[in-house]
Amino acid sequence: MERKTTLKELAKILNVSISTVSKALNDSSEINPDTKARVKEVALANNYVPNELAQSLKGKKTKTLGVIIPEVLSQFFAKSLHGIETMASSLGYKIIICISNESVQKETESLNILVNTNVDGIIMSLARETQATESYDHFKKVFDYGIPIVLFDRVSDTLVCDKITVNDREITHKAAMELHNSGCKNIIYLSTIYDTSVDKQRQIGYTSAMKELRSKPEILHIKDYTYFEENLLKVLKKSNVDGIVAADELSAISAMKTALNHGYRIPEDLSVIGFTNGVLGENFIPSLTTVEQYAEEQGRTAVELIIGRIQKTIAAEPVHRIIKTSILHRNSTRQSLALQK
Amino acid sequence: MERKTTLKELAKILNVSISTVSKALNDSSEINPDTKARVKEVALANNYVPNELAQSLKGKKTKTLGVIIPEVLSQFFAKSLHGIETMASSLGYKIIICISNESVQKETESLNILVNTNVDGIIMSLARETQATESYDHFKKVFDYGIPIVLFDRVSDTLVCDKITVNDREITHKAAMELHNSGCKNIIYLSTIYDTSVDKQRQIGYTSAMKELRSKPEILHIKDYTYFEENLLKVLKKSNVDGIVAADELSAISAMKTALNHGYRIPEDLSVIGFTNGVLGENFIPSLTTVEQYAEEQGRTAVELIIGRIQKTIAAEPVHRIIKTSILHRNSTRQSLALQK
Repeated sequence: MERKTTLKELAKILNVSISTVSKALNDSSEINPDTKARVKEVALANNYVPNELAQSLKGKKTKTLGVIIPEVLSQFFAKSLHGIETMASSLGYKIIICISNESVQKETESLNILVNTNVDGIIMSLARETQATESYDHFKKVFDYGIPIVLFDRVSDTLVCDKITVNDREITHKAAMELHNSGCKNIIYLSTIYDTSVDKQRQIGYTSAMKELRSKPEILHIKDYTYFEENLLKVLKKSNVDGIVAADELSAISAMKTALNHGYRIPEDLSVIGFTNGVLGENFIPSLTTVEQYAEEQGRTAVELIIGRIQKTIAAEPVHRIIKTSILHRNSTRQSLALQK
Repeated sequence: MERKTTLKELAKILNVSISTVSKALNDSSEINPDTKARVKEVALANNYVPNELAQSLKGKKTKTLGVIIPEVLSQFFAKSLHGIETMASSLGYKIIICISNESVQKETESLNILVNTNVDGIIMSLARETQATESYDHFKKVFDYGIPIVLFDRVSDTLVCDKITVNDREITHKAAMELHNSGCKNIIYLSTIYDTSVDKQRQIGYTSAMKELRSKPEILHIKDYTYFEENLLKVLKKSNVDGIVAADELSAISAMKTALNHGYRIPEDLSVIGFTNGVLGENFIPSLTTVEQYAEEQGRTAVELIIGRIQKTIAAEPVHRIIKTSILHRNSTRQSLALQK
């Protein structure tokens, strides 16, 4: 953390009395508006972070929201960003976006930029490294300043703030059970988003379904797409896999492509359920049966929450909004046996 | 445009003499550093935009680049953003991103945010509405402040700044000729990115190929995906279409999907060439023959250019970098007849 400036140091920098600084930061009527503005500016520029400053800044809304996403290439984050953007815009808020690129250092830099930009609130999904190493020190400054945060998708119990997630465990359990009910005997869990909170929740859901079915869970984490085909094929053959629950869209499509290239028929020989309702799964042939995560709705809900928090129209207690997902049935899976003739 | 503040007004706000303001903005040694900082801050906050201020700010680099993209859902912009992000990061620059959502008003707001955030430079691709209405007044403030801009993909002759484009005309001409050489007789140009500079260039390239082939050009602009299938099928049947040059990735994939759903074989009955090397075209079956626009390279080049401009390591004359694209041959087209047995 950067060292905080004291009231005394601020007074020295500004060449005024400590009392003037204090009164200016508390919006005292004894101080003229120009001096107040000057004191607040210099206080901000010098990393002065007292409660008074947070309070004095409360009236000075920028109507700008900061957004931090871990990466831009996934449809899930692109769609949630789209939801954030359109909702913020319709409510008269601007947004500025930073990308953490899955790194703690870049997430730290991003938070600093957003604090310095004087955003009214921050909407973010945590970087993989932040979740893997459980590093949360870099959030202190944001909390010190009293800037509200809403976390979505990738969240943490360590951070006390508003959160939006989906019913990951429940829906992954359901996805595995549906594969079983359609006749699949050997169902694996496939993921390229290892080390994230959502991956962990989905694994738990899958594992609990396997337990219920008295099947041995098999979890395949592929860390590098270069070896995707090779790694997947090995497991498909070894375990006679006929069902895959994939934790994200691209790994589901890549699995289907690999299987099709090696003579598997989909869904007859291999059924696949993925996550995210994106253009990739929608347009692939066969189209992907997938967990509709309502990415845009998550984005819109995040905006509603953060604005409620900024405008104090919601209760002080942190809110955890859980969005109920559903399975979007398309052509990569068979009907349930109960429904088949 | 917002009204500019005068030196006299600044002096009044700061409660100092005009001479002090002027000297402070010119970094005179007669003025103490704290006063200078204060004067500069207040000048910026009050929209004071003289050459002196621009000069006085030159030393105060933030090592932050602003980026404005028209939308987030296309693979082209996601990939170029990825290129910008990784290159900026490797050179020690942070980026903040705004989305114009194809609107002049949001582009204006975004530019204002970036100027107020004190970015060292701006990388952007123009909003459709900006290009359609030729509205460029909102750039004045950025030029007044002397903040360098690099435009990529969607550019304008009206704005005098560094630019990055691809050889759109030439490559679209080539794409149409390749379809012809592979046996296509009735080749149309399909686009959903109407009103953009890149669409215009690609149309010109296509039309020139049709002229060379003495074929009547047929241009199909579809403005709303809701009516995509209906609109496309009408033209496919009416004109016996057997070749499509599509101006972007999603329209190429949607065209293939529509055709496959209606009994066309690809590439035997209908060949398709699209733009952008994204996950959609790569994973669709048949995979899409496409113009590799080197989106990430465009992003990286934009960062190199803007940093060269910021650090004054490139000549004063604006640079127009044209990236040579190539056609990535995959399974949605046939071999050239000359190569077929």
